[in-house]
Amino acid sequence: MNIPEKTIERLSEYRRTLLSCHEQGITHIFSHVLAGIHGITAVQVRRDLMLIGFSSDTKKGYDVEVLIDFISGILDNRSVVNIGVIGMGHLGQALTKYFNGRRSKLRIIAAFDVDPQKAGHEIDHIPCYPMERFEETVEQLDIKIVILSPPTAVASELVVPIINAGIKGVLNFTSMPLNFPRGIFVENYDITTLLEKVAYFVKEAEES
Amino acid sequence: MNIPEKTIERLSEYRRTLLSCHEQGITHIFSHVLAGIHGITAVQVRRDLMLIGFSSDTKKGYDVEVLIDFISGILDNRSVVNIGVIGMGHLGQALTKYFNGRRSKLRIIAAFDVDPQKAGHEIDHIPCYPMERFEETVEQLDIKIVILSPPTAVASELVVPIINAGIKGVLNFTSMPLNFPRGIFVENYDITTLLEKVAYFVKEAEES
Repeated sequence: MNIPEKTIERLSEYRRTLLSCHEQGITHIFSHVLAGIHGITAVQVRRDLMLIGFSSDTKKGYDVEVLIDFISGILDNRSVVNIGVIGMGHLGQALTKYFNGRRSKLRIIAAFDVDPQKAGHEIDHIPCYPMERFEETVEQLDIKIVILSPPTAVASELVVPIINAGIKGVLNFTSMPLNFPRGIFVENYDITTLLEKVAYFVKEAEES
Repeated sequence: MNIPEKTIERLSEYRRTLLSCHEQGITHIFSHVLAGIHGITAVQVRRDLMLIGFSSDTKKGYDVEVLIDFISGILDNRSVVNIGVIGMGHLGQALTKYFNGRRSKLRIIAAFDVDPQKAGHEIDHIPCYPMERFEETVEQLDIKIVILSPPTAVASELVVPIINAGIKGVLNFTSMPLNFPRGIFVENYDITTLLEKVAYFVKEAEES
């Protein structure tokens, strides 16, 4: 199935909202309610769900539990996906804590850092390895995805080890956009962009 | 000027690349080089810059320094914008360290936390205030934007204080999308979405 990147992002967001509805005992939700929570139109929600082949009883809205399972069938891997974090500074630790606290098929199982205070120890129950052992550790632990949260200055040095280790997906939080050969999916995301965007629209609203 | 959100994001990203080029002594850059770094087409780069009214000598490419100033003229506020962080856990601390380390007109000047171990103290040279004093502190320090990095469970409780304090922009990193009345720009960004997206495209590549 060919699903656009933006649709995948929204499906992930819908699922999180649906999980939270489910926890609160809500069994059904209308497309316009789901849309309202995400600040988009009901047409967009219906179009996204139609694209993945989901149809529902529209009188009571979508069945929350059924829709969670349906979206999970699209997004999730059949088995757990092992993830490594490169750079265990504040951001790396925040991400590790955050992801491992939730029910998910994505699991951070290893960290890598050049700092000898960190490498060789456990941080938040995750073993931290020295960067020299990156390639062998990725192979041993069957790590498929890495999250990059090192200082931006070293980001470009990581491209070759990541290729050599056979990593398939990269989530890059440094300020340096990285390119990888075909077959490695990369998402470059600098948090600064988000803050600059908020600041721009605040400025625009003030000036208009 | 009516500039779409996605264009604003790209302008912010171009500027970061241009700043890094400038540091390395690069004086000119072609649109296709800038495009390649960001994994987009040269047409997209030229369209974005045309939209903001930037034209350049195409023989040598864009003048890096001139283009930085031009984009800054679009994105930046005339004066420094004061920002507060609500929730000084690992993520809040990572964001604070990160932003205040760079040349920018966006400055994190205050943090807020309910933890008495944090409130009343300085964290990374930023004073941390108790949440009870949120509204008065925002007014005293002229804070316009807040970054939300508290536990997701408390996110919805923050909406009313944020409205009452007169905040104009919100960057929300919790898993709970928040809605605000017109006049408050909000960017909801759950990092989980990014990781789920990378995992999905890794899975798709493996299955195809």
